[in-house]
Amino acid sequence: MNILAIDTSTSLASIAVAVDEQVVAESLVNTNRTLSARLVPEIERLLATAGLGISDIDIFASATGPGSFTGIRGGVATIQGLALALGKPCTGFSSLAMLAMNFSLATTLVCPMLDARKSEVYAALYDCSAAIPSPRINDCVLSPTAFLDQIVAMSRDKVIFAGDGALRYHDLIAERLGDQAIFAPFPSHNSHAANGITLAQHAFRHDELKEPSQLLPVYLRASDAEINKSNLPAVHSASPT
Amino acid sequence: MNILAIDTSTSLASIAVAVDEQVVAESLVNTNRTLSARLVPEIERLLATAGLGISDIDIFASATGPGSFTGIRGGVATIQGLALALGKPCTGFSSLAMLAMNFSLATTLVCPMLDARKSEVYAALYDCSAAIPSPRINDCVLSPTAFLDQIVAMSRDKVIFAGDGALRYHDLIAERLGDQAIFAPFPSHNSHAANGITLAQHAFRHDELKEPSQLLPVYLRASDAEINKSNLPAVHSASPT
Repeated sequence: MNILAIDTSTSLASIAVAVDEQVVAESLVNTNRTLSARLVPEIERLLATAGLGISDIDIFASATGPGSFTGIRGGVATIQGLALALGKPCTGFSSLAMLAMNFSLATTLVCPMLDARKSEVYAALYDCSAAIPSPRINDCVLSPTAFLDQIVAMSRDKVIFAGDGALRYHDLIAERLGDQAIFAPFPSHNSHAANGITLAQHAFRHDELKEPSQLLPVYLRASDAEINKSNLPAVHSASPT
Repeated sequence: MNILAIDTSTSLASIAVAVDEQVVAESLVNTNRTLSARLVPEIERLLATAGLGISDIDIFASATGPGSFTGIRGGVATIQGLALALGKPCTGFSSLAMLAMNFSLATTLVCPMLDARKSEVYAALYDCSAAIPSPRINDCVLSPTAFLDQIVAMSRDKVIFAGDGALRYHDLIAERLGDQAIFAPFPSHNSHAANGITLAQHAFRHDELKEPSQLLPVYLRASDAEINKSNLPAVHSASPT
């Protein structure tokens, strides 16, 4: 079974291709402002290095968020389009769960944390001791202080912090949690789409694959456009004059 | 500081580029029998995606083994050539240490194991609880049975097994170690050159960078060519007739 998985929830996009239980190609590429131009060619290139064509893929998988709105929208739309055109199933997974999987089998709890701008983070707390991480605090968007308070209220056990949010709020985390916080080595702050393939296989085994139309982004908060729209004065229909 | 790190010790080569403490591009590509044709173009492509040229690299780093003889020779030679031509320092690191770093911060010991053919494995046992792994059993080449016996004699604590050797000798490991053995999820069987960048930074901080001529492969055993040569009957100089 051949699986393509992508993650576009941060500016460092990741794409991976696996044949059965073997990763045959993986790529991390900085897509700052160039995702739409780079994603499909990068998928094609990666498949070619693996000696595969796009029609050889059996399951298309994407991180559905949380993370960059534009990134997630582009990634999910690309996977939907490929799956729809080829009549194949697809599946989505949490970008935070996938980031936490950089610490697969860790007996320490893992806090994946992405910078959500506006003084907030996308964060969660996962138990990664098994191959499939299980949430102790579900994916959410919150001020880093409020999120760290949740962790402290739950447990005083050590927690591994990873992700660009953990880098941005390093000092705050160290101040609030002291020795309880362990910071990931820098290569582990980036997500690897190969871990998304493990999540896609899990969805397949549990009969949870989706139709392309069912693959939806999980933004966790309203976009600026939606917020601005709801703040606008109501527009009355102009009566024809 | 810009670092290029590569690992060509298995057929899934990995290349990573970092700017300071940030990975800006990484690639895993299957190079079965095509390494010499693929490695340099792949390095060039990866640097281009990161907006860098080869002369922007400050440190060139490579896994020096153990692993595929041809792979290591090609990888080390490429890094030596680039560093020599550009007058930059280089550094080498253990392919097994880098593989173990897929479990950075793990409180469980990690056994990276690569298939060495001829019924042997390249293996080691690392404590990965800090960012830089420290060996409990040094990199060696041995029959898998003899290596597993060393582990059992040392400790009955759990051990995470990763690498293509762990896949090949899965049943033997399970039989000998039982519950003591934990098998890595499949994406963690592949090495990531980004972890080699952490090792290169460590070498830089400890003033251990090398001249290109000092970067040497670590094969751990004699090549077939050397073995065959030593088994040949002594060749006597033919006297001119």
